[in-house]
Amino acid sequence: MINEQLTGLRSAMREQGLDAVIFPSNDPHQSEYVADYWKIRAHFSGFHGSAGTLVVTQNEAALWTDSRYFLEVEQDCQGTEVTLHKQTIPHAPEHVKWLCDLLPKGSIIGHDYRLLSYGMKEYIDSFIQPKSIQLVDIPDLVEGLWNNRPEPQRAPIVDHPVDYCGESRETKIARVHQLLEKENADCLFISRLDEIVWLLNIRSTDVDFTPLVTGYVLVNSEQTYLFSSHDRFDAALLEAMEQANVSILPYEAIASSLHELTQSKKVIADRDSLNYACYASIAGELIYQPSALGTWKTVKNSVEIENTKNGMLKDGVALVKFFHWLEAYLENNTISEYELGKKLESFRKEQPLYRGESFAAIVGYQGNGAIIHYTAPENGSATIRNEGILLLDSGAQYENATTDITRTIWLGGIPSNAIKKAYTLVLKGYIALETLQFPKSLTGMQLDSFARMHLWQHGLDYGHGTGHGIGAYSMVHEPGQGFSASGTNTRGTLTHLPQQFTSIEPGFYQTGAFGIRTENIVVSKVVEETSFGEFLGFEALTLCPIETRLIDDSLFTQAEKDWLNNYHARVFDTLKTSLSAEESAWLKERCNPL
Amino acid sequence: MINEQLTGLRSAMREQGLDAVIFPSNDPHQSEYVADYWKIRAHFSGFHGSAGTLVVTQNEAALWTDSRYFLEVEQDCQGTEVTLHKQTIPHAPEHVKWLCDLLPKGSIIGHDYRLLSYGMKEYIDSFIQPKSIQLVDIPDLVEGLWNNRPEPQRAPIVDHPVDYCGESRETKIARVHQLLEKENADCLFISRLDEIVWLLNIRSTDVDFTPLVTGYVLVNSEQTYLFSSHDRFDAALLEAMEQANVSILPYEAIASSLHELTQSKKVIADRDSLNYACYASIAGELIYQPSALGTWKTVKNSVEIENTKNGMLKDGVALVKFFHWLEAYLENNTISEYELGKKLESFRKEQPLYRGESFAAIVGYQGNGAIIHYTAPENGSATIRNEGILLLDSGAQYENATTDITRTIWLGGIPSNAIKKAYTLVLKGYIALETLQFPKSLTGMQLDSFARMHLWQHGLDYGHGTGHGIGAYSMVHEPGQGFSASGTNTRGTLTHLPQQFTSIEPGFYQTGAFGIRTENIVVSKVVEETSFGEFLGFEALTLCPIETRLIDDSLFTQAEKDWLNNYHARVFDTLKTSLSAEESAWLKERCNPL
Repeated sequence: MINEQLTGLRSAMREQGLDAVIFPSNDPHQSEYVADYWKIRAHFSGFHGSAGTLVVTQNEAALWTDSRYFLEVEQDCQGTEVTLHKQTIPHAPEHVKWLCDLLPKGSIIGHDYRLLSYGMKEYIDSFIQPKSIQLVDIPDLVEGLWNNRPEPQRAPIVDHPVDYCGESRETKIARVHQLLEKENADCLFISRLDEIVWLLNIRSTDVDFTPLVTGYVLVNSEQTYLFSSHDRFDAALLEAMEQANVSILPYEAIASSLHELTQSKKVIADRDSLNYACYASIAGELIYQPSALGTWKTVKNSVEIENTKNGMLKDGVALVKFFHWLEAYLENNTISEYELGKKLESFRKEQPLYRGESFAAIVGYQGNGAIIHYTAPENGSATIRNEGILLLDSGAQYENATTDITRTIWLGGIPSNAIKKAYTLVLKGYIALETLQFPKSLTGMQLDSFARMHLWQHGLDYGHGTGHGIGAYSMVHEPGQGFSASGTNTRGTLTHLPQQFTSIEPGFYQTGAFGIRTENIVVSKVVEETSFGEFLGFEALTLCPIETRLIDDSLFTQAEKDWLNNYHARVFDTLKTSLSAEESAWLKERCNPL
Repeated sequence: MINEQLTGLRSAMREQGLDAVIFPSNDPHQSEYVADYWKIRAHFSGFHGSAGTLVVTQNEAALWTDSRYFLEVEQDCQGTEVTLHKQTIPHAPEHVKWLCDLLPKGSIIGHDYRLLSYGMKEYIDSFIQPKSIQLVDIPDLVEGLWNNRPEPQRAPIVDHPVDYCGESRETKIARVHQLLEKENADCLFISRLDEIVWLLNIRSTDVDFTPLVTGYVLVNSEQTYLFSSHDRFDAALLEAMEQANVSILPYEAIASSLHELTQSKKVIADRDSLNYACYASIAGELIYQPSALGTWKTVKNSVEIENTKNGMLKDGVALVKFFHWLEAYLENNTISEYELGKKLESFRKEQPLYRGESFAAIVGYQGNGAIIHYTAPENGSATIRNEGILLLDSGAQYENATTDITRTIWLGGIPSNAIKKAYTLVLKGYIALETLQFPKSLTGMQLDSFARMHLWQHGLDYGHGTGHGIGAYSMVHEPGQGFSASGTNTRGTLTHLPQQFTSIEPGFYQTGAFGIRTENIVVSKVVEETSFGEFLGFEALTLCPIETRLIDDSLFTQAEKDWLNNYHARVFDTLKTSLSAEESAWLKERCNPL
């Protein structure tokens, strides 16, 4: 099936004189999760993970992805001619040098310019120009090859009320006007979908798991243009948009309208998200700067914080009910990983304002927990019984919050010393980072180490970042700050600001044996101001007991026990009134002080 | 006096049509400590610290330096028209933007091109070109203005034996030949003095505190050229140099010889140390890369490690004798900070192979300890008595080792809670970084935080880096790896390798009240290798008791006590046989387990 796709593709490449094509995983908006219409890389490779790049030549079908997906690629691409190339740094464009070393001088590489950021185009140019290799746009190549390609989404666009987001679209647009004035610019161009829905207080269902709206936005001092579709709005929202001076233009008209609206204008754009097709359409002078909205949206206002606390309470209630049910159920039954994921979803569905999962839940039993981005298959997933270890990473979209939580629980039997040691070191890492007080100037790269130091002390580590930003009824992996050992992405390079939501999720993975991860969402805040400046700290927003039966007492300090006891007291006090007497009693036991 | 110098300078500037001149603190070899001949910035500003840049226009005399020197500048420049500009990041060239904002279009800035690195020239160009400001060379401007300018050093150059450095000049030069082959280059140009003395196993006294030789080196596959002076070598060393195919050419001939020797050659050079005058003389094609020797010299061989351990033993013996003497002396006497520095030197002088101090010792009593790079004046320094707190940062050059140590001691009375708290948090920071086990890929920026985290937790911090590399009978601040929160210098950006020497020196400073710093030199080593790679750790080389009377027990964990007890047991066991019975008894008490 995949090999047939590749045969068809290669035949079209020969017709069009292309020596290679590059299919990235993003859409024209540099999104991580993309609408089905844009799942081109998955269509031609069979690999469905969220990050990866496929490079096809007449002899090669090379898939580049990072360590999170190595096992998944082996499964997804088994029996195809797709070969895995292991990225040493996640998201690093290591395929570019590889391809340029492979191709002879004068070759031609095809790349859909809508899927190519301005920054990446520059990067590729630096490799191909010395070898006289040419890069060409291939806007129509895929269309003819992909039978039954999914349609672009056209679901209704709805208002995201100020009661949930805390700031009107008018005042958000006024912030852009101030920026234009400050930078002496005429307009701001936005292509990231989460920035668009944040700015305009709108939501829809264009992308799996994420309430985004496909579109572009151009803001000038008089008018804001949203490139989308009129007929996706109802009358009330249309009127509200008009009142905020937002005009809706057709998505398909982006190239021509952008050209017209930017004639002799100074246009601010972010070189990392501006795609090369839009770049080519902008007639005016470009001013590149990292997106201001990219930062604004990460700093949550008090209404967003309160709503998210409410979302975390609902999520905690659903999880406690679920774990309580699971314990009883496994006494006399078994259940597949896939079914368990569905069951967890059903508990969350009972909560008010639930709108769906925020990503495909990871239910990893025993050795499957070691597959970092594991998806249990609908048929033939592992059978869970009342013994061993289970890793559960899941999250929800509520209309007033986005959640993401990982718990690793023990189902029965006697855990090995290796499991207890790793579990305890991971938990110690979580606590070390969550309780750290640090100056405001610290980057994610400097903070990341605190979650790893206890593992390092025992020669252990994990192959993923320690945390990501998270939106408020928006992207579960919100671009911006985070915790990462890598200086090549914003999660490593950006400093943390007060009132940001970030996950802390250290882990440990023993291939074929077990996986451990403990994840809470935390909010940053100023905890102290001294003559040395502002010091930030974190507060856990996620409310759900943490497994205590896997803790190795000899590695756990009194201060760490105190932290866990305080956290559990807060979990119990906050959740108990929303539970049945039996669930509450179960929770009380789980929250017993150590 | 300084104002007169500035008047003369400005008159010469007007004659030569210069609107501004920049005087950096370095010499043509980008050295930190420079020969008296090159102390131009100090001559025109009065400020004698090791880092700073003076910018002079007709109306301004602006001195840029970092927080270590703020108090010192105030003292040194009092009564002059020199104004202090505070760098927010140490060594950052913040004066360039300031000057370009100040000067009108078309202005002319003078800068001695020998004192301007290729990298800095590029940086300045990026600011001046948009404003049509011109940069011109001023090789002769200072000569006519500086009466009684010190002569360049001409002391004998001596052989640095393989018994101390562990590798012959022949095999070091062979490493360069391999590099040339690997990079397909014809020659390597070296202008850093510590790289030159490392490569050729020579030493002299050209620079205060540092056994360097002023020169340049060009290595090609047949011959190595040292630009220095024949008459500084004795016959035996000249013959040894000849055997290693090292030719000696006159230092003054660098421009013409370099031009001739590089005709149609590919030349490797380091853009951060290559000065612009040499750049202009190189006739061939330049290949820029960070200096390989810069890394080679930081990785010490087993002979260097053994010799440094011997140096640390001698230094420890001298310090114990000194502290023992001081305690008795202060019972009935007082002593000035300046005299105490001399006294400390006298104890070190008794040790074999002693060649001098490795920097001007910092003897800071009470509030003077808060002046980070304090130099006690010969006349009128503070009087030390048997009460309060004393910070002592000092080091030595032995022919087989370089040392650098800071101890903060309590002389009598009852320490305040603030002092005990700060002292304990600083010590906890030292222990946290010294005992950390970490993957080989970690940079100084990621490691630096571990020394600060305990201070941060109490809203405290310190305004300097946490550590620097140190040479083996070479520079006390060896360029290379280190611990720094800043990503703008190699101490922050470089990863650590096994067998490097680095200082760990967290501190805390309360202006006008007290200063605290605890510093040991450590050696890095592979402590564990697992499936996650090599993990590094540190071992303290410095051997000297750490003040225990300032420890706040309530902040000090059992693990930290264990560390201190182990360290003290090692200090006592290693030093005791080199001490008198009385000194040994004194040391035993200082090393008593907590």
